[in-house]
Amino acid sequence: MLDIAMAPRNSVSATETKKFLRAAHGETLDTPPVWLMRQAGRYLPEYLAVRANNDFIKVCRTPDLACEVTMQPIRRFGFDAAILFSDILIPAIPFGAGLHFDAGHGPVIDRPVRDRRDVEDLREFDPRTELSDVLDAIKMIRHELADDKALIGFAGAPFTLATYLIEGGKPDPFKRTKRMMYSDPQSFTILLDKIADMTIEYMKAMIESGADSIQLFDTWGGILTDSEYRAVNLPVLQRIFTELQSLNVPLTYFVLNGMHLESVAEAGASVYGLDWRMTIAQARHRFGHDVALQGNLDPVLLLTDEHTIRTRTRAILDESGNRGFIFNLGHGILPDTPIQSVEILMDEIRGGKK
Amino acid sequence: MLDIAMAPRNSVSATETKKFLRAAHGETLDTPPVWLMRQAGRYLPEYLAVRANNDFIKVCRTPDLACEVTMQPIRRFGFDAAILFSDILIPAIPFGAGLHFDAGHGPVIDRPVRDRRDVEDLREFDPRTELSDVLDAIKMIRHELADDKALIGFAGAPFTLATYLIEGGKPDPFKRTKRMMYSDPQSFTILLDKIADMTIEYMKAMIESGADSIQLFDTWGGILTDSEYRAVNLPVLQRIFTELQSLNVPLTYFVLNGMHLESVAEAGASVYGLDWRMTIAQARHRFGHDVALQGNLDPVLLLTDEHTIRTRTRAILDESGNRGFIFNLGHGILPDTPIQSVEILMDEIRGGKK
Repeated sequence: MLDIAMAPRNSVSATETKKFLRAAHGETLDTPPVWLMRQAGRYLPEYLAVRANNDFIKVCRTPDLACEVTMQPIRRFGFDAAILFSDILIPAIPFGAGLHFDAGHGPVIDRPVRDRRDVEDLREFDPRTELSDVLDAIKMIRHELADDKALIGFAGAPFTLATYLIEGGKPDPFKRTKRMMYSDPQSFTILLDKIADMTIEYMKAMIESGADSIQLFDTWGGILTDSEYRAVNLPVLQRIFTELQSLNVPLTYFVLNGMHLESVAEAGASVYGLDWRMTIAQARHRFGHDVALQGNLDPVLLLTDEHTIRTRTRAILDESGNRGFIFNLGHGILPDTPIQSVEILMDEIRGGKK
Repeated sequence: MLDIAMAPRNSVSATETKKFLRAAHGETLDTPPVWLMRQAGRYLPEYLAVRANNDFIKVCRTPDLACEVTMQPIRRFGFDAAILFSDILIPAIPFGAGLHFDAGHGPVIDRPVRDRRDVEDLREFDPRTELSDVLDAIKMIRHELADDKALIGFAGAPFTLATYLIEGGKPDPFKRTKRMMYSDPQSFTILLDKIADMTIEYMKAMIESGADSIQLFDTWGGILTDSEYRAVNLPVLQRIFTELQSLNVPLTYFVLNGMHLESVAEAGASVYGLDWRMTIAQARHRFGHDVALQGNLDPVLLLTDEHTIRTRTRAILDESGNRGFIFNLGHGILPDTPIQSVEILMDEIRGGKK
């Protein structure tokens, strides 16, 4: 008789062939599944060829282009998961804030969100219609992708998305964000809630369209102190992960540079992505054994030499014990990463095994 | 009879009037001493007036200009410590690597250090002759400064200085640094040792010239993992602090974004500077009660409102208990900080008391 009380809250079928899903549900595998943050990107000549004639936002919003670049690293390296080619800032467009990318300066929000009126002016929209191109890309990718590969959909965490919307671009050192957070906390809360509402619907729509898993990227959560994080960030994360739990897919939370955030383990994710500063042992201590971990080779090490790549990769594998573990980098792969470094990495992880 | 065994290793005279030194030696004061990182700088109109006709390096290397801008914030706000106006990269000039500042792009090292030959080509120099202008500035400042104000000399921590020398400017994401660290560890070690040797002599010369205390700024130490930090950074820090201990002045170590560096407490400093991410309680737990702490209001909060500045400042004061505690920001003051914010901060710290 099956003891329901003992079953993990999100169970995986005994016949599941996707290694990513098995590991995300806590299984111990011979070799861990592997994918790399920003695996579809500028280090790939085939990606640069697509981008030569298409700007970044166009690739994100044209389903067959997004599908093509999403598939490129899977074809080349056989990663265990594909991640939708998109950007956490794409929802700024249907929000009505406007978005473009300045060469060399990164993203620019055309109409930054500075006060209560700006917050209220953000349009509520249905991602199923207004981001249908993204969802169409997911359908195409899931169709092209082999059955044993997982497809990851993603969004920015509300705090991170809010910092971009408020600052109007790359947020450093987060002056306007903290000013609103402290001096107009009500507007800040409304903004985060508005983004969270959108995110929940967007992620649900991604899963309905064929995504096997969801990751929230909290690139800037680590600029907060733990008490700030607990006050403003944690409640919206908890709300999102609670709402998505019934969908029965792995929910990953990645916060960059967040080792000081003691509350992070309360976010309610089922997989925690680690940056390179944290050891797997430290992460296990913090997050416990009921969640999976994902990470965390320093992407800069892919610019060193074969010996270093193999040694540091092996150390992570040994420490993880391959239980409930997904191999990844500790941050996005760098544009000047040699292809050969990724080949060495994959060889070290798989060691001749699939 | 004085029990020598019970005396702190660096003792302070019973008649010492400098609050900074009393706090640095662990005393409990009514109100803590206060100074702010980058307190002499662009938020001050009188500083901008000096800079209007003098470039940054010229101000650093002209004793009466360096003295003038060092004194400006003391005159205006009555801080308890002056910090020499200089830059951690100034030693790159006598090293022979060259240095200039590009408007908007920060520091540029003219001849970056990329391989063993470059490391060996760095000139060994005597700071007493080749940085005599800096030492002359210290003498002038100490002469102008009231007896109850401390003068802080400083240098970059060797790892941080090495990253600038290797990368050739603002080091992000530290590609060349980590490549040398992993692929040519011998050259990297020689480089750090060479910088440490210089730093020891430079800091000794600063103290001989009238500095009451020394701070090492490790701006980039926090990009390392704890095991990398322990392997490459900690040994040179320990060597520097051990060598300087006999000078009987407070030795402060500030590492930005280093909460994950569990080994940091072994650096051997007598004062630890904290960035804003860490609470005073966490810092006490990590560093123990035999050292003083310095920090750590988020500088961005000086761009918010009076209520926020007072509330967050009060929280730090309450948590510190004013024992072995020096008030500071958690990072350098921002150029667009209103003067009035600093006045509010000082009023909250001193509460009418001196």
